Amino acid sequence: MTDTDFAPLAAAIRKALDAQGFHKLVGAEVVDVAPGEATLALDRRPEVLQQAGLFHGGVIAYLVDNATTVAAATVVDRARQSVLTAEYKLNIVAPARGDRLVCRATVLKRGRMLTVVEAKVHCRSGAEEKLTAVALASIANIDLPSAA
Amino acid sequence: MTDTDFAPLAAAIRKALDAQGFHKLVGAEVVDVAPGEATLALDRRPEVLQQAGLFHGGVIAYLVDNATTVAAATVVDRARQSVLTAEYKLNIVAPARGDRLVCRATVLKRGRMLTVVEAKVHCRSGAEEKLTAVALASIANIDLPSAA
Amino acid sequence: MTDTDFAPLAAAIRKALDAQGFHKLVGAEVVDVAPGEATLALDRRPEVLQQAGLFHGGVIAYLVDNATTVAAATVVDRARQSVLTAEYKLNIVAPARGDRLVCRATVLKRGRMLTVVEAKVHCRSGAEEKLTAVALASIANIDLPSAA
Amino acid sequence: MTDTDFAPLAAAIRKALDAQGFHKLVGAEVVDVAPGEATLALDRRPEVLQQAGLFHGGVIAYLVDNATTVAAATVVDRARQSVLTAEYKLNIVAPARGDRLVCRATVLKRGRMLTVVEAKVHCRSGAEEKLTAVALASIANIDLPSAA
Repeated sequence: MTDTDFAPLAAAIRKALDAQGFHKLVGAEVVDVAPGEATLALDRRPEVLQQAGLFHGGVIAYLVDNATTVAAATVVDRARQSVLTAEYKLNIVAPARGDRLVCRATVLKRGRMLTVVEAKVHCRSGAEEKLTAVALASIANIDLPSAA
Repeated sequence: MTDTDFAPLAAAIRKALDAQGFHKLVGAEVVDVAPGEATLALDRRPEVLQQAGLFHGGVIAYLVDNATTVAAATVVDRARQSVLTAEYKLNIVAPARGDRLVCRATVLKRGRMLTVVEAKVHCRSGAEEKLTAVALASIANIDLPSAA
Repeated sequence: MTDTDFAPLAAAIRKALDAQGFHKLVGAEVVDVAPGEATLALDRRPEVLQQAGLFHGGVIAYLVDNATTVAAATVVDRARQSVLTAEYKLNIVAPARGDRLVCRATVLKRGRMLTVVEAKVHCRSGAEEKLTAVALASIANIDLPSAA
Repeated sequence: MTDTDFAPLAAAIRKALDAQGFHKLVGAEVVDVAPGEATLALDRRPEVLQQAGLFHGGVIAYLVDNATTVAAATVVDRARQSVLTAEYKLNIVAPARGDRLVCRATVLKRGRMLTVVEAKVHCRSGAEEKLTAVALASIANIDLPSAA
């Protein structure tokens, strides 16, 4: 697949996210979508923090959920299949302190039924970047009804 | 611990959640806090949905994150310890369709360093209630600096 | 499904386990197989311990892996489908001390592609039974080639 | 830490594994121990397979459990602390077919209470190496009684 071929897919994925009420409420940005990869990011603002001023765990989970699903969406045949989160596990490895939260998801294995994706979430404070969370997700491939 | 003893703890927990910007943004309700248990709920509105009209996976994760942490907070000595999510795993078992999402978290084991908590998330549509997600979480017990 | 209908299925499952070299090496016992449920157990002997005299974590994982798969196998149409572990998460909640390890797996949801199963592992010492591990597993339903 | 300093630690870790009855029963080999890393491997033999001739899932879990714990043990001060598996999640991403199973564990973050470790398990068939499982583990740091 060339980058030219990939452009409409990236556009379709961005359009699907823009149609999510929750995506707009939280206000994340799709930084990059490439074959087998997706990066989402979110700037610090009071509405995405918890009581101690850290990014809320639910915000980290939201980035992981969307980034892993988008990464999986890049490796299915979207004319025939859709994707849906089956499950994931998330470890918070350091307090989510900083100006910006960046989540990069990478497909580890595209299976017939499930795509397994890992995600790493970093906090940026100025030039410094620090690992704050890691995740491992299984995204289900769903056959579209019209694909018969 | 009697229910009378427990009232100030439940009040302190509700106050901590009310101080979370993200908790207010998402708009969840603390339905119940009891020793070893917590129930949070959220009504359907466009801002908490994904593009197909289901509750967003990030919203489910947010409820699981907060409900498991609150349940763990009820079993530590809050004069000496605070709690922080270490990790959790979440399975989406059915599409999150319906009018209201209800997450109940129950402590399985209070350890010295970690409290292990399970959570079940149901969707309500009228009188019907359907299991939509299950989770298993490890919440860390953090010694307060002033506890020395 | 009546108990009479279920007997051949339980027998087929036991036969499949007996054909596993690793099942024989570890020496676990199938205590019970019922619709949506399975219980496996293992008595203490030096070969299943770690260096501090506790049951080895790998033994707990083996019981969880087999018990969750067997529980899932009871809810698929075995003429058309087989089952295979997709993933699981396991929390060790207390040291695995005692005479016997008992793992009970229960189906939470039978999906089209995945069956979600929880497992609880207890240690028995005389009459006492203590929770030592909890797990949450996704077992894949695999269409048999002959099912076309 | 220089490689010279690390040699006694690697020797102590190998000795601890050799004292595990289950480690000897399964017969895994410690291929490499380095700061923040551990590699364990196991050759194919009938006793470590399931009924279809694949490596048993319990064997994969055993390698993950031991390799992640050993990797974590390399980053604690062993004069003061010991390590113990708190939890892990394991995805089987392809059938465990082949001559040899190799599990490499790498520390992602050494925390005060928990060390977070990832593991990748490959199957080797001749010169070919294929990813068969991925895992994410939390290993607890336990203060030794004599460390006071």
